[in-house]
Amino acid sequence: MPFTLEDLDARLEVRAGASPEESYTAKLLSRGVDKCAQKLGEEATEAVIAAVTGDRAELAKEAGDVLYHLLVLLRAADVPLATVMAELESRTARSGLAEKAARKPE
Amino acid sequence: MPFTLEDLDARLEVRAGASPEESYTAKLLSRGVDKCAQKLGEEATEAVIAAVTGDRAELAKEAGDVLYHLLVLLRAADVPLATVMAELESRTARSGLAEKAARKPE
Amino acid sequence: MPFTLEDLDARLEVRAGASPEESYTAKLLSRGVDKCAQKLGEEATEAVIAAVTGDRAELAKEAGDVLYHLLVLLRAADVPLATVMAELESRTARSGLAEKAARKPE
Amino acid sequence: MPFTLEDLDARLEVRAGASPEESYTAKLLSRGVDKCAQKLGEEATEAVIAAVTGDRAELAKEAGDVLYHLLVLLRAADVPLATVMAELESRTARSGLAEKAARKPE
Repeated sequence: MPFTLEDLDARLEVRAGASPEESYTAKLLSRGVDKCAQKLGEEATEAVIAAVTGDRAELAKEAGDVLYHLLVLLRAADVPLATVMAELESRTARSGLAEKAARKPE
Repeated sequence: MPFTLEDLDARLEVRAGASPEESYTAKLLSRGVDKCAQKLGEEATEAVIAAVTGDRAELAKEAGDVLYHLLVLLRAADVPLATVMAELESRTARSGLAEKAARKPE
Repeated sequence: MPFTLEDLDARLEVRAGASPEESYTAKLLSRGVDKCAQKLGEEATEAVIAAVTGDRAELAKEAGDVLYHLLVLLRAADVPLATVMAELESRTARSGLAEKAARKPE
Repeated sequence: MPFTLEDLDARLEVRAGASPEESYTAKLLSRGVDKCAQKLGEEATEAVIAAVTGDRAELAKEAGDVLYHLLVLLRAADVPLATVMAELESRTARSGLAEKAARKPE
């Protein structure tokens, strides 16, 4: 049975309860939302660079870092992953360019 | 049964086969890896801003955009989501700060 | 006499007094600090991509966009460019790795 | 006489000739364009966060970091600062929204 984002989030929930000395996740969370957001920005930049340089192995690794730090940030900000997934489900139920128009009402 | 990242990826696979005029996903993919990477960078910045300003509804939306554009980028770069999830599984099977040391060998 | 960042900032000061309909600078400023910050993040990503792909002409253009949007952001946040330059001067007066240690006390 | 970006660039040119052990600038340059680009992305994210949180002292510091790392990146990519400034001069000689239209022809 494949490992899912929800499985990862469940692991993070356990780690979040550990002490910052024992767990990197707990340490990040203890530093607050701004620090967690900063890490997401850093990892996104690294994923961008890996993609543009065509390094697929590195991109797989950096994409994992983006997912991990996104989950940490959602946790730091008290936004459930389920909320994010429910919105993605309803948004992508629409098709074609209509989806884009709906997403960027600006 | 909750909507998963794999479900989203399956939807993107269908969209990827549509014409760029019909589908935003197909349009993005037709513009190449660099453009898809740029979009990921933009959405990450927007998620960072939503998190730091404490706008939880906006963060849920932007986190969805990060996930969506990350999947598009993986697809553009021909990296299977399963590869990313398998690496996350093995990496987070380790615990505590050891996980960090393993991730950032530098 | 070469065009400097201070010259650019002087031009922005004039533009800032125009109406948002007439001036892109005035329009950006009217949308607030968060929007100006978002634009800086976007342009930085574009500069990163241009650099990594080795497109020097594009990097020159994107570096200009980073400088322009950084000045707009400083203006939106009411931070004088002179403050930034004075700090850079004192910081880089120190040499070698000591400079790094001073910059990242963490 | 105020410290300018050109003065900073002149200092970087001196540092670039030092050994990576002595100079942070030389060390960054020795790691290549991708690493220098990554640092620019990181510092831009930090400037974004400082701006959005309304921390003006931090923004002054982070804006300095953006300028410094942008110059390092230009040097790594062999793009003269003068080229960037000349383009900014000609671009901003135009006024109002025409400037935006010219910049984003897409």
